[in-house]
Amino acid sequence: MTITGDQSLLKRINSLALLRLVKSEAGLSRADLAKRSGLTKSTVSLLVQELIDEGWLCEREITVSGSIGRRPTPLQLDADRLALMGAEIGVDYLNVVACNLRGDLLDSRMQAFEHADLPRTLQALARMVAEQHKALRKQGRRALGLGVGIPGTVDARGERIGVVPNLAWHDREIHAPLAQALAKAGVQEVPATVLNEANAAALSEYVFGTDHAFDSLVYLSIGIGLGGGIVLGDRLHLGHDGAAGEVGHTILQLDGPLCRCGAHGCAESFVSQRAVSLDLTGAASPILPMGELLRRLQGGDAAVLQAVQRAGRYLGMLMHNLCNTIDPAVIVLGGPMGQLGEPFFEAARASFEGMRGRYHFHTTTVRQCRFGLNACAVGAAGAVLHQALLG
Amino acid sequence: MTITGDQSLLKRINSLALLRLVKSEAGLSRADLAKRSGLTKSTVSLLVQELIDEGWLCEREITVSGSIGRRPTPLQLDADRLALMGAEIGVDYLNVVACNLRGDLLDSRMQAFEHADLPRTLQALARMVAEQHKALRKQGRRALGLGVGIPGTVDARGERIGVVPNLAWHDREIHAPLAQALAKAGVQEVPATVLNEANAAALSEYVFGTDHAFDSLVYLSIGIGLGGGIVLGDRLHLGHDGAAGEVGHTILQLDGPLCRCGAHGCAESFVSQRAVSLDLTGAASPILPMGELLRRLQGGDAAVLQAVQRAGRYLGMLMHNLCNTIDPAVIVLGGPMGQLGEPFFEAARASFEGMRGRYHFHTTTVRQCRFGLNACAVGAAGAVLHQALLG
Repeated sequence: MTITGDQSLLKRINSLALLRLVKSEAGLSRADLAKRSGLTKSTVSLLVQELIDEGWLCEREITVSGSIGRRPTPLQLDADRLALMGAEIGVDYLNVVACNLRGDLLDSRMQAFEHADLPRTLQALARMVAEQHKALRKQGRRALGLGVGIPGTVDARGERIGVVPNLAWHDREIHAPLAQALAKAGVQEVPATVLNEANAAALSEYVFGTDHAFDSLVYLSIGIGLGGGIVLGDRLHLGHDGAAGEVGHTILQLDGPLCRCGAHGCAESFVSQRAVSLDLTGAASPILPMGELLRRLQGGDAAVLQAVQRAGRYLGMLMHNLCNTIDPAVIVLGGPMGQLGEPFFEAARASFEGMRGRYHFHTTTVRQCRFGLNACAVGAAGAVLHQALLG
Repeated sequence: MTITGDQSLLKRINSLALLRLVKSEAGLSRADLAKRSGLTKSTVSLLVQELIDEGWLCEREITVSGSIGRRPTPLQLDADRLALMGAEIGVDYLNVVACNLRGDLLDSRMQAFEHADLPRTLQALARMVAEQHKALRKQGRRALGLGVGIPGTVDARGERIGVVPNLAWHDREIHAPLAQALAKAGVQEVPATVLNEANAAALSEYVFGTDHAFDSLVYLSIGIGLGGGIVLGDRLHLGHDGAAGEVGHTILQLDGPLCRCGAHGCAESFVSQRAVSLDLTGAASPILPMGELLRRLQGGDAAVLQAVQRAGRYLGMLMHNLCNTIDPAVIVLGGPMGQLGEPFFEAARASFEGMRGRYHFHTTTVRQCRFGLNACAVGAAGAVLHQALLG
């Protein structure tokens, strides 16, 4: 019998498979790739040559050794010819970065920004992107795409905003106006993709780290509020309504303190800059700036220490709940609260370890994020690579 | 260029794709299948014929109508020739069922059982399976496999038990001794698979329902204890250490009541027969039997009503947390506690609805399970079909 298959589709699938193999282990040779992919050596050679021509792969220099015979040439992701652009629309700033395929930061432009309406924000963002794009082209780099992280919910196709609480944007188109703003700013052939900021931050760790080996990761973005991003089975887990990962609004205490979402006892009302500030001042606003908290903490202020430890304790509880629900390989702690350092994380770890019951053995690794305040923008750039690799 | 492909693998993938299409929508014709799969009509005809020959599919009788010309023949899963066997090792019983491909119950054998050691349990189970297998063969049915649900953790390959708290089994091989017991009891060519009971129950709803259309489902098994099973992206989500879905041990109150796992404030210590009983008697044991709770509830006992409503309220909180973490399309409530009916579920629904914050719009459907106390065994049978369809 004959099974017809689309040869160009097959070719694309195979190319991506090779690319993913090299990404997961730099230094593989064509022969290694043939062995691991099950493709013939001649097919691998053809596909690898195309990937080299397109700027995805390069051959790594090898030191000449005394051994005789031709050595297999190690391949790796090319760091020099392609670029991934990423941006974050922050509550009071815009951040635009560019990375190479390995996640090394090439360029970073952050500016304070006061939002008026969505079109104005997109216009300002597009101008920053356009400048960066020009700089990249001058360096001879081709930008594969732009990812944009926003502090709110986005539909699964990245076309519409659900709600951005802090900017009062609600149920709005985002993809089309962004594309228009980019075109108007002169950015050509750079497809854009929009995603939630915590989801983007999760991808910064997953796409550019070794965590993809584990296939499951939860990122907690802890700042004024508390957001989460989940990667499962090589995909962002968005959920049925895009509400997956909204772990800041899981409830940690029935009839607990009022959260700004209107519910009571949400994790965010215990684990956030807002919560620590409220704990110290008794008032919901103004929120004590991180700089002040940090200064007082380092100055030995017992009240601040206690408030930070309390937040840490509830963070441990949230991590415990995530382990008993999702059981991820890795939990990454990110966001501005991380600046509070050990007093915060130590309390979280102690509470997390102390909650482990007799029958439950999770080996989840907990660690801090690697990209600091660039996590969202770098992850948005990572989303471009991630989507390209998914085909 | 030439891409080589394994033709027999491709054929298998295509066969499974067709089978899944018919499973998801009974009544599709060969022409429909060609359209939806992208395969040629002749390939579809060949593959469908093989699936019919092997007992997977049948042509549905169609009523003769007045119209002229040949009508396309509707296909459906064959209900008559293949069988799926499923079993549950309960804390004080063994349950063995057989279903057809559509999930209709063909045979059910439950017996009270006092566990001594694991080999004795497997021996007794194998005898029940052997009798049922003989009965199925007499009816001319071929058994595709046996799924076995156990009240504890199982590794991802279904080979080893992690821990079965109620039966004091810990870190033991299960697959090999089960296969041996089956062979000894004369059960031939029936591959066995072992999984956690709540995961099995989740598959009962996912494999034999229409919920597979949604691709994400959480099953809560509420009885003496509280377990959970999660289906995401057409797979059981087991987690990094097999601890995913252990939602009975997410913590709903810091420093809450002591749970039997040794931690404090676990969901199970609020939402379980154990919790309701403790609430009423003030003692951890004996646990009030469900029959007595039900009688008192129906007799208007205010204390029982209050305890049941309290459990319901925390159940609503747990469901809320699941929505803000996993955001599943469906939450299915199962297990013996369901017998308490509306007073329990009404409290859960009210608390669940009341917790929805201003910014969170999940449309998760909550419903009761369909297979009652057979859910685990039917789902274990479903696991056999599910694995076959995943290829």
